Amino acid sequence: MKDIDIIKLKETILDDNDADAEVLRQELKSQKTCLLNLMSSPGSGKTTTLLALNKAFEGRLKWGVMEADIDSDVDAYTMQAAGVPAIQLHTGGMCHLDADMTRQGIRAFGRDDLDLIVLENIGNLVCPAEFDTGAAINMTILSVPEGDDKPAKYPLMYEVADVMVVNKIDALPVFDFNKERMEGYVRKLNPEMKLFYISAKTGEGVKELADYLVERVKGWNE
Amino acid sequence: MKDIDIIKLKETILDDNDADAEVLRQELKSQKTCLLNLMSSPGSGKTTTLLALNKAFEGRLKWGVMEADIDSDVDAYTMQAAGVPAIQLHTGGMCHLDADMTRQGIRAFGRDDLDLIVLENIGNLVCPAEFDTGAAINMTILSVPEGDDKPAKYPLMYEVADVMVVNKIDALPVFDFNKERMEGYVRKLNPEMKLFYISAKTGEGVKELADYLVERVKGWNE
Repeated sequence: MKDIDIIKLKETILDDNDADAEVLRQELKSQKTCLLNLMSSPGSGKTTTLLALNKAFEGRLKWGVMEADIDSDVDAYTMQAAGVPAIQLHTGGMCHLDADMTRQGIRAFGRDDLDLIVLENIGNLVCPAEFDTGAAINMTILSVPEGDDKPAKYPLMYEVADVMVVNKIDALPVFDFNKERMEGYVRKLNPEMKLFYISAKTGEGVKELADYLVERVKGWNE
Repeated sequence: MKDIDIIKLKETILDDNDADAEVLRQELKSQKTCLLNLMSSPGSGKTTTLLALNKAFEGRLKWGVMEADIDSDVDAYTMQAAGVPAIQLHTGGMCHLDADMTRQGIRAFGRDDLDLIVLENIGNLVCPAEFDTGAAINMTILSVPEGDDKPAKYPLMYEVADVMVVNKIDALPVFDFNKERMEGYVRKLNPEMKLFYISAKTGEGVKELADYLVERVKGWNE
């Protein structure tokens, strides 16, 4: 096969966000709040997964959600209707949250009594991976219809996440999704990745994910 | 229902990309090249749609593809294997292409004999919408599994695109996807949007899209 020309375009420079994120992480640790940064493509099922987790937590955690969106506020209303304290963050067009924006959100939320705050980041596999939000847990969702090759194409996301959820497994019969190939890409990027297969729609696999998260949150808040 | 607190975080400022894009658009017009900027979430089926279009063009266009990816080069090989001239652009982690990066790509491609150059942008519903690449046609793909609410959540994409392709319609029976609701969101943002329903996998609807694009390209290059 003929070689492909590969052109490297200019690179962006990241700022001092990493240091700021580390400060926020320690602030949250000292007030016994575990922040979970939830990242995925648009439409992978972030909100649906949170609704499924809410049931599966079975009251074991006091938790709330910060919904980050460019413009809409439908997700925050959805979470609130399910009895989960929720706040809506509008990023003014920005494609990700950095540590300072996350801090602004947490202050506005004003709930230092929660064991767990989930930041539902902007639906985007690229930019959120570049910006440490100060979270103790970085969780990414890949839905089956997106394809098994996403870890190869958006590698940074799978390097920075420590928990990966494969969602919409009820749709596996309809799509060409090779679990082994997907896991091969992920393990190469991140051998320690904690991997869960779920259907937020049918509930399959959600209990295992919820149990794991409850333990992670308790460990962080000890 | 209780109101949700909405916090406006800081906004980014766009640069003079728009002016640069307009210059590039006129340069391409004068050399009779139509540039199509193809945007979508990761996994919506951009490359599969291009492969389906290649068959449906039936030789009516001389065309080529610039595959923009953060790191991989699998898409450019896929297009080349199908007989389509292709070049791979690596963005060095960047989440979108701007007009200057697009110009770098077109120069490196070095094919001023093509009627149509497709820029397959980074899989991202947010950032590519903010940066005019100089394209004559801005096309976005929404796949059925992503959900009918994406235009409400990522409005800018549906404002800047003039052609919208709803892909994976073969999966409509498996997902809760309300066409009327989706079209309602889109028409509100962009009453002029040209809308096509296709399955790049089965070929359904692809001929209509191909016929339309052939006419658009001919019109531009006249």
